[in-house]
Amino acid sequence: MNYIVNKENEIYYECGFSSDNALFLCLDSYRYLLTDGRYVLEAKEEAINVEVIEARDLIKKAKELILKHRVKYVKLDPYNWSKKEFEELSKVTTIKEEVFFSHKKRMIKTEKELEIIKKAVEKGALAFEEFKNYIAKVDEFELSYRFKELLTQRGRRELSFEPIVAINENAAKPHARVSGKILKKGDLLLLDAGIKYKRYCSDRTRTISFEDEISMSKNQKFKDKFVQKIYDIVRKAQEEAIKAIKVGKKINELDKVAREVIEKAGYGKYFVHSLGHGVGLDIHEWPYVNSRNETLIQNGMVFTIEPGIYLPNKFGVRIEDMVMIKNDKVIVLSEEI
Amino acid sequence: MNYIVNKENEIYYECGFSSDNALFLCLDSYRYLLTDGRYVLEAKEEAINVEVIEARDLIKKAKELILKHRVKYVKLDPYNWSKKEFEELSKVTTIKEEVFFSHKKRMIKTEKELEIIKKAVEKGALAFEEFKNYIAKVDEFELSYRFKELLTQRGRRELSFEPIVAINENAAKPHARVSGKILKKGDLLLLDAGIKYKRYCSDRTRTISFEDEISMSKNQKFKDKFVQKIYDIVRKAQEEAIKAIKVGKKINELDKVAREVIEKAGYGKYFVHSLGHGVGLDIHEWPYVNSRNETLIQNGMVFTIEPGIYLPNKFGVRIEDMVMIKNDKVIVLSEEI
Repeated sequence: MNYIVNKENEIYYECGFSSDNALFLCLDSYRYLLTDGRYVLEAKEEAINVEVIEARDLIKKAKELILKHRVKYVKLDPYNWSKKEFEELSKVTTIKEEVFFSHKKRMIKTEKELEIIKKAVEKGALAFEEFKNYIAKVDEFELSYRFKELLTQRGRRELSFEPIVAINENAAKPHARVSGKILKKGDLLLLDAGIKYKRYCSDRTRTISFEDEISMSKNQKFKDKFVQKIYDIVRKAQEEAIKAIKVGKKINELDKVAREVIEKAGYGKYFVHSLGHGVGLDIHEWPYVNSRNETLIQNGMVFTIEPGIYLPNKFGVRIEDMVMIKNDKVIVLSEEI
Repeated sequence: MNYIVNKENEIYYECGFSSDNALFLCLDSYRYLLTDGRYVLEAKEEAINVEVIEARDLIKKAKELILKHRVKYVKLDPYNWSKKEFEELSKVTTIKEEVFFSHKKRMIKTEKELEIIKKAVEKGALAFEEFKNYIAKVDEFELSYRFKELLTQRGRRELSFEPIVAINENAAKPHARVSGKILKKGDLLLLDAGIKYKRYCSDRTRTISFEDEISMSKNQKFKDKFVQKIYDIVRKAQEEAIKAIKVGKKINELDKVAREVIEKAGYGKYFVHSLGHGVGLDIHEWPYVNSRNETLIQNGMVFTIEPGIYLPNKFGVRIEDMVMIKNDKVIVLSEEI
């Protein structure tokens, strides 16, 4: 099996190291990591079961290695390589295109990966809890900044993605940008954030009520009855979808279960995205939990369950937890802490 | 002229708006911005002189538009498109490959762009000045966090790149990662950072001495005479290179001037990178100021002059300022504030 990968997380998965300028090659079971002078010392210390080679021009070096091994073909993912790079590599061998092959490999996590992800989620959830003490009548920029201070432990930890911090009608945009809107008592506040631990991502969303008492639990009490009604529908959709998870079932059935709860309540058209996505080294990876994916649920999978209802110009509710499948059991990660 | 661009800054340059999922097409002088439902409202408000079209599958929509206009060819940069995307577009027209055509366009800035960049650099330089009051006997993580707090104004402004904050021997790595190393009196501290203002980048490096009095000026006094000697060589290299800038001259002559100063002092092999790079919407763009680029210096160019000497396991010195060329004059941006 000869293949070559160029995405940071895909390289890390192969050999335990990567940088923003690296390539990993597997040629006749020889394994190479190519990177430039800035990273080569760290690479030699950290990379596992791979020959580290320093190169200025990585593609040129890759071509040399391919020629040296005289391999008949090299497999790569055509979504990840530029037309120009593809052309260069084509000069020295036959390219076998296979889309998403690294995603496919990484979909089923090892015991060790599951342990790391569990810890990532715990650490992320703790930052949500701590944040309760910093939520105040300030704007979304300031709320977001305070939240990130806790999530990153003042820059010592990376984020999985730029957090979403959205008040009332801003929460009605599933990918709201932080604004100057100021939080007031009685407002709804949507928080979607994750951190990286040993390079693995966490992901979590809570929609909470800003009152004298703040809770990050999923038991939220909103003074506005309509908001409470919508919240309860989303919560029920999440609960039903989680209950429906079972090894051997098609994953699109989960999306169906959640969507039916929301549709029956009359808000189907306001659930504008799919139910969830896999999480690992990438924040979005296989398996996607949507209405089309017929992949069977298997041990070692990790994905989010995150239904939502978004009422334009009013408010939005989303509740998101990560689940993992292990020994035929469904574990909801740090659902409440 | 028919062309299509897919990089965020290249799209923004064409129409004043972009998102992380967008395409810009120019077909027979018709101009289109394609983006998905999350961004389409903002796009319609902000994009200039372009028809905004909402699409889920941007490549599919691009193909439809190309077919509708029946254009004979479309130009694109083969470094920016995946093999897969290229193949899709090839189905509906002839692709004319031209590398770096957007970089080429953006190399000469307009008056308006020059004004914005000047302000970006002023704002960035002010954050360096403010940071003087927050430098203390803490580790690089904490220093970096405090620095970013000022650079971003608590998250209200974006960074051009992840700042480099490096003490003594860590500064000997041109791209040092922040570590747990603690700053002590008498240490050398290298700071390399920039901010974005109206999407344009600033970039600046100062190497300073951590004493009771801290200064961000280029007049640094190091107690260690050897450090001072190296610092003075780098400073002279920067001064000479800046003096050598002249409209109509080849830009690689600047690299030569700086390199000669450092070589004559006997440290040529420790100046391990090129002299500078263009700055604009991208933090690294045309013109590159290296030993190979024969592009002529022209009005409207903006680039860095940043010589350095890196002594492994000892320390490193780099001094970086941005310059712009306007009305045949060389303006060093916020050299001292």
